[in-house]
Amino acid sequence: MSPSKETSDRFSVRYRLTGDETEARAKAADLCLEQTVECSADILPNGFIPEQVVGRLESLHKSSAPGASAFEALVSFLNDTTGGELTQLCNVLFGNISLKKGFRLSRLEDGSTLWGKFKGPRFGGDGLRALLGQAHRPLLSTAVKPLGLSAEELARLAGRFAAGGIDVIKDDHGLANQPFARFAERAERCAQAVRKAAASMGHAILYAPNVTAPTGEVHERARFAKQVGAGALLICPGLTGLDAMRALADDDSLGMPILAHPAFLGSFVTSADNGISPYALFGQLMRLAGADASIFPHFGGRFGFSLDECREVADGCRDALGNLKSIFPAPGGGMNLQRLPELLEFYGSEVMFLVGADLVRNGPDIEKNCEIYRRLIEKS
Amino acid sequence: MSPSKETSDRFSVRYRLTGDETEARAKAADLCLEQTVECSADILPNGFIPEQVVGRLESLHKSSAPGASAFEALVSFLNDTTGGELTQLCNVLFGNISLKKGFRLSRLEDGSTLWGKFKGPRFGGDGLRALLGQAHRPLLSTAVKPLGLSAEELARLAGRFAAGGIDVIKDDHGLANQPFARFAERAERCAQAVRKAAASMGHAILYAPNVTAPTGEVHERARFAKQVGAGALLICPGLTGLDAMRALADDDSLGMPILAHPAFLGSFVTSADNGISPYALFGQLMRLAGADASIFPHFGGRFGFSLDECREVADGCRDALGNLKSIFPAPGGGMNLQRLPELLEFYGSEVMFLVGADLVRNGPDIEKNCEIYRRLIEKS
Repeated sequence: MSPSKETSDRFSVRYRLTGDETEARAKAADLCLEQTVECSADILPNGFIPEQVVGRLESLHKSSAPGASAFEALVSFLNDTTGGELTQLCNVLFGNISLKKGFRLSRLEDGSTLWGKFKGPRFGGDGLRALLGQAHRPLLSTAVKPLGLSAEELARLAGRFAAGGIDVIKDDHGLANQPFARFAERAERCAQAVRKAAASMGHAILYAPNVTAPTGEVHERARFAKQVGAGALLICPGLTGLDAMRALADDDSLGMPILAHPAFLGSFVTSADNGISPYALFGQLMRLAGADASIFPHFGGRFGFSLDECREVADGCRDALGNLKSIFPAPGGGMNLQRLPELLEFYGSEVMFLVGADLVRNGPDIEKNCEIYRRLIEKS
Repeated sequence: MSPSKETSDRFSVRYRLTGDETEARAKAADLCLEQTVECSADILPNGFIPEQVVGRLESLHKSSAPGASAFEALVSFLNDTTGGELTQLCNVLFGNISLKKGFRLSRLEDGSTLWGKFKGPRFGGDGLRALLGQAHRPLLSTAVKPLGLSAEELARLAGRFAAGGIDVIKDDHGLANQPFARFAERAERCAQAVRKAAASMGHAILYAPNVTAPTGEVHERARFAKQVGAGALLICPGLTGLDAMRALADDDSLGMPILAHPAFLGSFVTSADNGISPYALFGQLMRLAGADASIFPHFGGRFGFSLDECREVADGCRDALGNLKSIFPAPGGGMNLQRLPELLEFYGSEVMFLVGADLVRNGPDIEKNCEIYRRLIEKS
């Protein structure tokens, strides 16, 4: 984007609009109105509203991507349309337009003063490294599961993963506050098991309980997690709202790193012509909303993400966006030992790998299974 | 669903799975694992977890709908997998599966004891009628807009709509807390203007300020709204999280009816093979989360909903679901006078019509424009 297009009181967003140029131009004009004043131009008063408040089409270029005809539209909005709130920013970005076909939010453009109004990730990838004392290699994480085990059984697993050298041990994101393993008991037992292993190993290990919860209880559970010595938090912003994660990240009294899980958000990325790009959703928006690592399904596992989509997420986690810290992409979902070399090649070292069932499936000695992963990672 | 399939400790959900029978059966098996234990069956302990916690395929039937081959799967889950929380219920319904292609959540089946754990709408359609003293005819609503007007200008509009006989006057959902018209001043002025008109008209009129806001401020704004005499609340659960709406609805100290706006939720319904059906999303889930009216774009306006999709929303608002009150579908988005007869025919009387620009576009006498709508509705 040319700097002349950006003034300090506006921010710019790139959309992909389907159709030929006439259709795309009509879509762009529609978007500029729909995302701000929500009515047609003919009933607007003259002056400030049509000139400043209505979105502004800065440029329109034919998309070079393969597939049906589409155009890339760069649209700018007045910073003030967001009121500085993440909820209303999301509304300006993709509120009503989500309900129309052929509009896709591609990316938030760097260079706006608006992004600086959001604190974003408290730690970022570098901060995670500092907490763990791991300066260079990719980080290794896993989840305690399955749903249905008792808190005691889950804690035993957490301790074994920790003793095997896993850096970050999180709850499975489906562990909430079910009777099988209530949040408080689970968080306390798992945190204790992980702390105990960390003490005997002589290095830091983070346990991240899942604080995805009803409104009002998210913060309560996070505070409890801190109190019992959990080192991090897991949340599903698709279930709680993105802003609930932002509130956790911004809370100085917590000061804990946050892993974002993509549950319930998949519909935004299942269509190439609609929704939000993986770059913007699992990269930029997660970051803006305070995630330090963004979990997503890697290509070829249980989920259907393409390599291009995975690359997008990683880029969105790392590319410049105002002064927001870069964060770690956290690919997971059906990873196994055989694929690790390919993953190391694809993501490089600024990444947190999320390995699941493979640590349990490769024989009963879980600690040993973990150590195999850890050694492969350390050699990388 | 046959009663024998439902036991009191399980709830049932219908999904549409693409593919031939073999593919659909594989998808169903995958779903049963992915939405609960998130791992393959081979690493589960024997007993309770595979027998009870893992979802259960109750039936699979070829879909009779036109289009590519698909199957309707009825899947049951243990109530306890949700922990009684809406956030985790949404995760069981469509958390990880949202990230895979060819899975669509069609409907929550009636008959489960789980739905009774949620209070749902406090008022429902009948409650809205009682508040407004309108026993029979469709309700009429509109929005104050556009973004960029001052609180004073918006309040003047609100007063004129009220004087013209509109039943429910809401903020445009893009009015948050921008400098043009801060929430507090806007809510106070609009509520006052509407109360004044209601007093002179001699009947109740509801003003619904938009309380879509950062976590923690949703409730604060709702309390303020009540304090300044607003009669209802507007919220976008796609932006705040569904549970933020549920918390408003459940709060006895508020006791205000809630209008749900679909902003940011469109990606769930843009693909016939993925996402969540309009029936389940804008009907059942909005209701479960406490909406008394569910706003959505009617066919043929600015948005691309089909008549079938609109019918689905209306049915999801009204069909039996546990003991939850039925609510009013609130079609809007580019409605005009010429279409009103068709809309009356399509939705019947248990509906709240949302009319926007047409009340402003049809000449400068806004009160008169409103009265024309009101008279047409009263004749219906």
